[in-house]
Amino acid sequence: MQPERPLIAMTMGDPAGIGPEICLRAAFDPAALRVCVPVIVGDAALLERVGRRCGLPVPHTRAPLDQWRPRRQLSEAAIVDVQAIDAEEVIPGEVDARCGRAAAQYIEAAVGLALHGEVDGLATAPIHKQALHLAEVPYPGHTEMVAALTGAPRACMMLASEKIVCSFVTTHIGFADVPTQLSTERILDVIELTHDALQRVLGKPPRIAVCGLNPHAGENGLFGRREEERLIAPAVAQAVGRGILAEGPFSPDAVFVPRFREGFDGVVCMYHDQGHIPFKLVAFDIGINLTLGLPIVRTSVDHGTAFDIAWTGKADHGSLVQALLWAAKLSGGRATAQGQT
Amino acid sequence: MQPERPLIAMTMGDPAGIGPEICLRAAFDPAALRVCVPVIVGDAALLERVGRRCGLPVPHTRAPLDQWRPRRQLSEAAIVDVQAIDAEEVIPGEVDARCGRAAAQYIEAAVGLALHGEVDGLATAPIHKQALHLAEVPYPGHTEMVAALTGAPRACMMLASEKIVCSFVTTHIGFADVPTQLSTERILDVIELTHDALQRVLGKPPRIAVCGLNPHAGENGLFGRREEERLIAPAVAQAVGRGILAEGPFSPDAVFVPRFREGFDGVVCMYHDQGHIPFKLVAFDIGINLTLGLPIVRTSVDHGTAFDIAWTGKADHGSLVQALLWAAKLSGGRATAQGQT
Repeated sequence: MQPERPLIAMTMGDPAGIGPEICLRAAFDPAALRVCVPVIVGDAALLERVGRRCGLPVPHTRAPLDQWRPRRQLSEAAIVDVQAIDAEEVIPGEVDARCGRAAAQYIEAAVGLALHGEVDGLATAPIHKQALHLAEVPYPGHTEMVAALTGAPRACMMLASEKIVCSFVTTHIGFADVPTQLSTERILDVIELTHDALQRVLGKPPRIAVCGLNPHAGENGLFGRREEERLIAPAVAQAVGRGILAEGPFSPDAVFVPRFREGFDGVVCMYHDQGHIPFKLVAFDIGINLTLGLPIVRTSVDHGTAFDIAWTGKADHGSLVQALLWAAKLSGGRATAQGQT
Repeated sequence: MQPERPLIAMTMGDPAGIGPEICLRAAFDPAALRVCVPVIVGDAALLERVGRRCGLPVPHTRAPLDQWRPRRQLSEAAIVDVQAIDAEEVIPGEVDARCGRAAAQYIEAAVGLALHGEVDGLATAPIHKQALHLAEVPYPGHTEMVAALTGAPRACMMLASEKIVCSFVTTHIGFADVPTQLSTERILDVIELTHDALQRVLGKPPRIAVCGLNPHAGENGLFGRREEERLIAPAVAQAVGRGILAEGPFSPDAVFVPRFREGFDGVVCMYHDQGHIPFKLVAFDIGINLTLGLPIVRTSVDHGTAFDIAWTGKADHGSLVQALLWAAKLSGGRATAQGQT
């Protein structure tokens, strides 16, 4: 017997953005349905409205959040109806505090379902930072919100695509603060989180390249303060001691060149732009964003709400399908397949 | 009457590397010959030896360095014979102090010719840092050596290719030292040097994108120490005040995405890897390296000595041809065309 496909919750994102449309498209996407059962966590009435506008089908199976318990039987896309907003009041492409609040409620609901084992993972559609801010939601974005809701002791961001995978030792901090935030312990954490995630996705031990910090990885101490020798190389050595196929530190401008990159399954980056610059160059709009180290599986699209084309039928759901595929692989299948059933 | 093509000196680089072969190939390359007259500054006997090995022709016109005055008549490739090394003693692919010393002598000779107006510019073939070091040449590389020999008050590195052009506010310094090395004056210098060079090459005012330092260019002060507002934006504003088409500071991970990059002719980068990571990704082995702000025109290949394939006939001279083309454009033609003749 085939193992049952995992249930992956898709949070609908900001109702006024492209989130509803890409959720509807992904709910019936053959590639997504092969590996998971997508469950839209959003507002059913709004999805109906967007479906009519864009000429898209809407899943029939649906239940209000407090009555959502159909996980054992489910074999096609469904909706968890959070009923967070009046569908008729939403204006596509407009920044609205009510939309920001609703988007936050979908995330809270989906995280709750995941923490209680009612879904096997989470793929999030885009939210609008300004709407979230207007709604006085006390988090700047998904990563911080999900981390707070799940209380993760160590977590890191990963950007992933078929062509390039980057994980980050530091992310949204100032350039000048990066050197002071690096430690062998943190670098080792990120190497391990990267190893664990890629091991689950690839089904084999991944090869991990670790970047240096300085030009030419310091060129044997010629540039920088020997961060490579003091902090990075010891973390790589400890990872190798734990059986991880990590190598480095490498010169940051060499790692991303295709013929070098192809020798590795993932790259551990020391700071935001070290990985974001090459990632966006290689995988713009087709990548996904993951938070590693959480007690739940969480992936996300790597694009915004695209208010300019909201509800027009022009949105591309490719990144959301990738987020579903990665979430399905990371989840390791439906929990009840081995458990409760 | 057509203006005479500029004379561009090609320094032969490390004799034991691919320099001699790519100089011979470039000396007869139709694309190079259309825009310049290439003059190899090296050792004639060694070029003969490499020519025999690789089955390549060697320019007939040649003169020892102290007798080199044929610039007014020259219409085909020539050799300035520095006679710095015994050709029979060179072993291809071997690090040798004598080769390092010879490579330095070619550079000194070519810089001298350029400073005296005997050639109109300089395109340098690769040298070997270790050989240079063994020869006790007191410079780590071309950039520093040429800057010292010409006494440039303000200079900067540029990487160039048809797809992407990056210039650098800082280069070979530690990551942690970058923020302290940034100043509005230096950023403005680099914007101006970039403008002047691209204006000469393109024949029209270039559009220049200026990178921020922090993630998302600081996101209005959210990350970093407001380097964008304090240092970078004022430099951009001053450049605009001088009529330069500069814009920014932009989010560093957005600038290099093709659809954004195509709106600009060059990108001013704050630090080494901000530009080297995307440049090597987009233009690996086809780019060239320029030093801007010198009293002479100097371009260089952006690859190494490739000792593993030295003298085998397998070297690709594409980057050297690009270096010749850029040197020709930057030189603005042969000085004597308007002057002494």
